[in-house]
Amino acid sequence: MASSKPVTPVSPPLKDDLDIVIPTIRNLDFLEMWRPFFQPYHLIIVQDGDPTRTIRVPEGFDYELYNRNDVNKLLGPKASCISFKDSACRCFGFLVSKKKYIFTIDDDCFVAKDPTGNEINALAQHISNLLTPSTPYFFNTLYDPFREGADFVRGYPFSFREGVPTAISHGLWLNIPDYDAPTQLVKPLERNTRYVDAVMTIPKGTLFPMCGMNLGFDRELIGPAMYFGLMGDGQPIGRYDDMWAGWCAKVICDHLGLGVKTGLPYLWHSKASNPFVNLKKEYKGIYWQEQLIPFFQSVALPKECTTVQECYLNLAKLVKEKLGDIDPYFHKLSEAMVMWIEAWDDLNPPKEAQASTNGKPVKEEPSSKSK
Amino acid sequence: MASSKPVTPVSPPLKDDLDIVIPTIRNLDFLEMWRPFFQPYHLIIVQDGDPTRTIRVPEGFDYELYNRNDVNKLLGPKASCISFKDSACRCFGFLVSKKKYIFTIDDDCFVAKDPTGNEINALAQHISNLLTPSTPYFFNTLYDPFREGADFVRGYPFSFREGVPTAISHGLWLNIPDYDAPTQLVKPLERNTRYVDAVMTIPKGTLFPMCGMNLGFDRELIGPAMYFGLMGDGQPIGRYDDMWAGWCAKVICDHLGLGVKTGLPYLWHSKASNPFVNLKKEYKGIYWQEQLIPFFQSVALPKECTTVQECYLNLAKLVKEKLGDIDPYFHKLSEAMVMWIEAWDDLNPPKEAQASTNGKPVKEEPSSKSK
Repeated sequence: MASSKPVTPVSPPLKDDLDIVIPTIRNLDFLEMWRPFFQPYHLIIVQDGDPTRTIRVPEGFDYELYNRNDVNKLLGPKASCISFKDSACRCFGFLVSKKKYIFTIDDDCFVAKDPTGNEINALAQHISNLLTPSTPYFFNTLYDPFREGADFVRGYPFSFREGVPTAISHGLWLNIPDYDAPTQLVKPLERNTRYVDAVMTIPKGTLFPMCGMNLGFDRELIGPAMYFGLMGDGQPIGRYDDMWAGWCAKVICDHLGLGVKTGLPYLWHSKASNPFVNLKKEYKGIYWQEQLIPFFQSVALPKECTTVQECYLNLAKLVKEKLGDIDPYFHKLSEAMVMWIEAWDDLNPPKEAQASTNGKPVKEEPSSKSK
Repeated sequence: MASSKPVTPVSPPLKDDLDIVIPTIRNLDFLEMWRPFFQPYHLIIVQDGDPTRTIRVPEGFDYELYNRNDVNKLLGPKASCISFKDSACRCFGFLVSKKKYIFTIDDDCFVAKDPTGNEINALAQHISNLLTPSTPYFFNTLYDPFREGADFVRGYPFSFREGVPTAISHGLWLNIPDYDAPTQLVKPLERNTRYVDAVMTIPKGTLFPMCGMNLGFDRELIGPAMYFGLMGDGQPIGRYDDMWAGWCAKVICDHLGLGVKTGLPYLWHSKASNPFVNLKKEYKGIYWQEQLIPFFQSVALPKECTTVQECYLNLAKLVKEKLGDIDPYFHKLSEAMVMWIEAWDDLNPPKEAQASTNGKPVKEEPSSKSK
């Protein structure tokens, strides 16, 4: 109920329940700007590309770092489901985390300011989004009814006001908007300067383009659906990793009665990627997408699927059946989806199974763990 | 396409194509504040309550005024479909208008200011919302892609970017939020101070609570669905007039492939209505609504219904069939819905039929027309 708002958590909220996942190929100097907000949290850094390169992490952060050698060692043959030379590799961080919540951010994203000039604590806003319910069954015209100073408006059915648990919090970006290559080419100078002071639930049955730049989620509720697909090195497409995860996760959230929010927080996206390079990565996706969206819009998961894993495996089967004709890539992707769930279950055994190992962690330690 | 934005219309836009409909029981002094924005337009004033009372309209406005005697004279026995002693009577103004667009506003609503202190021309924003397409089939995370400085984000399917015609523009309110009686009672001091700088399409398949206080629509596209039901004098409920119209209009927009936008513009809602009086009007609605919403969420109009009138008559039939058991009121409402469509067709004959009357207007003039 809107009238019983959760108590504002004491800072830093969820310190021991949240990992920050960062995929990168460079030194993480961007963390300096985030220090006041991120330093209390544990970081999982997924080093993409050449594993012999040393990534510099600013002093004082608590982190573990995985490079490609670690991925291969930890997952063995299943490592092939983790993309290489693409930020899609970030989902490896989701796999090895043991926390309830994940916040993932790109290393070209900085702290933005709100219209009053205050620096925005993006992580705190994601946490607030995740800890308050979503309202996917009816649109509230004053947006998030759980925010201070807002509520459900006249005509909002009372039986829907309890809401549903929030699985995903999708944040936005000021400055460089997240445009596809054609739009980048047409509008090279467009910048997002509009601060829209809203958080809202994306209604049930509606798909959205989920961007991985600034994203929080409840790993226990939706983690296994947050697979970023096969992109980058050796694959026919790129820049559809987060989109794929978003489509899969949204249909599963809808099926399981979980909520997805979008809007605040903003961060400052500093640098536009090269539109010519992007076009090369995207063009098959732009084309295939016209068939993928109708697929995801009409997909119906069986009632018997009551866990994210069951839903995801069912979706993998449907991807092969219904999308396999588009391109052999979708056969490979379907198999990778299954492999991902196997890897997830290996590294995240059910609590009973964990107990039967007599407390020994099932997960190996990363070779390059450092502090 | 977002890149081919419509040219900003010269002021005053749609001067000869839009009527402003105002239901009232008092002198219209509130128009003074709106003078710079409304004066070029024609007003249709629907006087509620005692028809012998004289309503004062500020000098210089072009208007026609209808009281209950005019309603009775013009509609004969069908006048019973127009509510009495309730702002639901506003829909009579929609019926007698001959313009393509309607803007309707309550007489306790004033000009609001945007965060930079500028007075908001609510009408101009509604017109802009109505003249640009809607995007009901996929959510755009940067909101209205047709606004200056925004576009479709990466991952938005290109085949959806043309959008669909916009039928309804739903505006919001600063200061007094549009809460139901229970929320008013619980939060008597809550004020809406948050200016959310966004316009967005309500996705297909999602219902919303449409408020009649600040509303624009395309009368040619959706007019016959904008019936505000049976409320007020002699009826068991009130304050659900706009909600009813919103539910009916939204399912018909979804069926016909039309768009509904919400968000900007804001106006300044000056005065909270009495929550005790409101509770008396609302309580049956609050209770019935729990069955009405599932009905509207699952209603399927037959493919053969290709006009708003056909859709609406079909809906009237379903209201009787599926909601008749809740209360005899829904039988009466269903019949009033049919009567409304008959009245609409009487006063708004198809263009061919109009031609056959040799140019004579079918509509009678109101008794109290003044200027």
